[in-house]
Order: sequence, then C-alpha cells, then structure tokens
Amino acid sequence: MSTSSAAPRRGDGTDAAEVRPPMREALVAAAFRLFLERGYEQTTVDDIVALAGVGRRSFFRYFPSKEDVVFPDHERCLADMQAFLARSPEDADPVRRVCDAARLVLGMYAENPAFSVQRYRLTKKVPGLRAYELSVVWRYERALAEYLRGRLGGRPDGSLRADVIAAAVVAAHNNALRSWLRSDGRDDAGAAVDHALAYAQSAFGDVPVPPRGTSPEDVVVVAARRGTPLWQVLREIETAFAHD
Amino acid sequence: MSTSSAAPRRGDGTDAAEVRPPMREALVAAAFRLFLERGYEQTTVDDIVALAGVGRRSFFRYFPSKEDVVFPDHERCLADMQAFLARSPEDADPVRRVCDAARLVLGMYAENPAFSVQRYRLTKKVPGLRAYELSVVWRYERALAEYLRGRLGGRPDGSLRADVIAAAVVAAHNNALRSWLRSDGRDDAGAAVDHALAYAQSAFGDVPVPPRGTSPEDVVVVAARRGTPLWQVLREIETAFAHD
Repeated sequence: MSTSSAAPRRGDGTDAAEVRPPMREALVAAAFRLFLERGYEQTTVDDIVALAGVGRRSFFRYFPSKEDVVFPDHERCLADMQAFLARSPEDADPVRRVCDAARLVLGMYAENPAFSVQRYRLTKKVPGLRAYELSVVWRYERALAEYLRGRLGGRPDGSLRADVIAAAVVAAHNNALRSWLRSDGRDDAGAAVDHALAYAQSAFGDVPVPPRGTSPEDVVVVAARRGTPLWQVLREIETAFAHD
Repeated sequence: MSTSSAAPRRGDGTDAAEVRPPMREALVAAAFRLFLERGYEQTTVDDIVALAGVGRRSFFRYFPSKEDVVFPDHERCLADMQAFLARSPEDADPVRRVCDAARLVLGMYAENPAFSVQRYRLTKKVPGLRAYELSVVWRYERALAEYLRGRLGGRPDGSLRADVIAAAVVAAHNNALRSWLRSDGRDDAGAAVDHALAYAQSAFGDVPVPPRGTSPEDVVVVAARRGTPLWQVLREIETAFAHD
C-alpha cells in the first residue's frame, strides 16, 4: 500500500467545506506513514512535524493531541450530521432520518477506503485509539438521540425510545462498516449499510399503514405445524371465519 | 452525605464471591472521600494510600490505575454476567436472557445507592472518567452480543441482529439507570429498568427459537383477508399441505 494513499483524499473542490488545508493533510500523511512504519506508540508529535517539515505549533493548531490525527475527519462529519438533522423536514420519518444521518459516517469512510482500512487495523492494535473511537461513536449516537428526543419527546417514553433507536441505528451501521473494513474495503459498503439499517428500521419503523378501506381486523392468520391433521386445521379456519 | 456511605456496602457474607478484602474497601472509601473533598484530578494515588494507611504497592495490587478505583465492582459484575450467560438453558429466549443479564448491572448499582449517585456526579464532571465508563459499557455490550451471536449465528444476519439487540438492550438499561441516578437513587430502579427493557424486548420480540427436533419448515402459515370465500382459503391450505 503506497504512502500517498494514507492521506485522506481531498474533495472534488466544488464545495468550500470540502477544501482542507494542505498543511493539515501533510501532517495526517506524515503521521500515518510513521504509525505504519514504527507503530503508533513509538511515534511522537516531534517525529510527525519533522517529517512534515513544519513546527510543533502548526500540529497543535490542527489537532489537540496525537490521537486526533488518527481521526482527522470526525469533527467535520459530526458537524455535517448535526446540520443534516437540524434541517430535517418537520414531517420526516424520524427513524428514516437518523438512518440517513448515519450514512454520512459511512460516506466519510468510503471516501478513502485505503486510509480507512489502515486506520481500522491501527485502531484494533492500540487500546488508547479504541477508547478514543468509542468516545467518537458515542458523540454520533448522542447527536442522533438528541434529534430523536426532539421528535419523540412529547410521546410516552420519548427519551427511552430515542436512546434505544439511536443505539440500534449506530450498532447496525457499525456492524456493516466493520464488515466492509474487514473486507479491506472491497465489498459494496453502501449496500451492506443499507441492508443493516433496513433491519434497524424494521424493528422500530412505522408499522406499515394498511391500505384504505381495510382495518387490521380484516386479516385472519392461521399457523399450523406440518403434520397437523387436515381436519384440525380446517376446524380452526372455520372457527376463525365464524366470527365474521 | 456521610463519608462512610461512600464505601461500597459489603455483601451479606453468605456468598463467598461477595466477600471483598477490607483493604480494598478502605482504599475505595479513602479515594472517594478525597475525590469529593478535593476533586478527582487534584487527588493522587499517594494521597489515597496515605489516607487509607497503606503503601502504594497495596493500591496497585487491587487497582491498575486511579480510574479503576472509581469503578471497583465492574470487573466482578462483568464476570458475573459472563457466567450467567454461559449457564443459559439451551431453550432460553435469547432476548429475554440478555435483558436478565443486563439487570445484573442494575443490581450492582442498586446495592449501594449513595455510592452510585456520588460516582455518577463525579463521572459527569471528569472527561477521563466518562471515557473509562464508555469502555466499561462497551465491554458489557460485547458480552451480550457474543452470547447472542452464539444463539443467532446460524441464521441470516445473525451477527447484525446480535449487535443491534445488544446495543438496544444496553441503551434501554442505561436510560433507566441514568433516570434513577438523577433521582438521587430515590425512584424504584427495578421498576424503571423492567419498563425500559420491556420496550427493547417488544422491538425485537421473542426471537423465535425452534424447539429441538424441529426445523423451520415444520410450520405452515396461511394468511387470508376476512371476506375471502372459504373455498379459496381451503384450497390454499390443501396446496400448502400437499407438499408434505
């Protein structure tokens, strides 16, 4: 894997928010080159700035700590997610909306698969980075839960439902994201995340609205174990229909 | 709040696993007294051992770090949870079982409300402790997910469902636990957690576990709209049974 692939790919430049300072990118590239060559613990901020050819103050202008350089895009992604949720239409289905918000995180990872896979391997090996990642995931989950509390707050158990749905959506997203990272970024990330989020949505989603002119009482369901004598099944059916 | 209440209450002594060394309890009591008086960051391990009247080595025999003394019972609780899940009956409803496992965590908090409320206030104020707590919560969630993977692994989306259900159960439990802690431990913790877990359970329902000796093909389900002529229903039934 070439070193250049370690730097996050810059956006296509059409969106101002996507333009990132070249010095920041140079620091990320230098840091990852050293993390992969020497290991995370063995690399100091001084090593990183020396390779990038900048001073220590430049590093700390962009990153509060060495851990932050490993996750250079999460702050932007979290801000994007909060902005996306804040501009939700009032009549948006809240569960669908948080699923769409979660897809922004996938988008960030899928923007640069090689970098994401390298980081995944690094994070698995360094306990401090795993703890950092947990706090990042927690902030995404809180952003989703806050939005859901606003939407469900008036209902019974609004805060409970908000917390549970947010946790389920994040877990579904991360299950698919991890599968994709384990495939070295080769599988179709979008399809896997769509499938996982559909499962979370099915658990909490709006119960499908019955077509007009019918009510839930209009459907009869009979379940029978194979091997049940046919006469017994027929008797159950007739009993069910007898109440019509 | 008296200082003595800061020490975790010892078990009733009838169960060997509940008996904890007095020195360990003295260290926890000393640590919490100092954390509350001076603040967590301002308290060193040297301060704690001086107040407890023991040497530094005794501290590190019980606790790997200062953070660990804040959560002295989580390791035991995690071990209890893993043991509880390991001895699950084969035909146990898996969602119900992980809900019962989560109740062990509540039990640990409810064992000593005053200590739990103090710790909750401390953890809210100290970012390092919040990060530590996230990693603890993550370990509980992994224990539940591992058990669920074992039970659901053979089915489509087994690992996805395991992760999502574990996250939802933990989120429901923690929502109720936090409400209880915010009430200063006055509300009925058990009732709140039962209610929250019932919501999580309702979302994923009884995940049907086929009884031993049967396979999913053993059940036939026929659904018919009321008003469907009986002859048409019967024909469907006969067709379904014809494949026996």
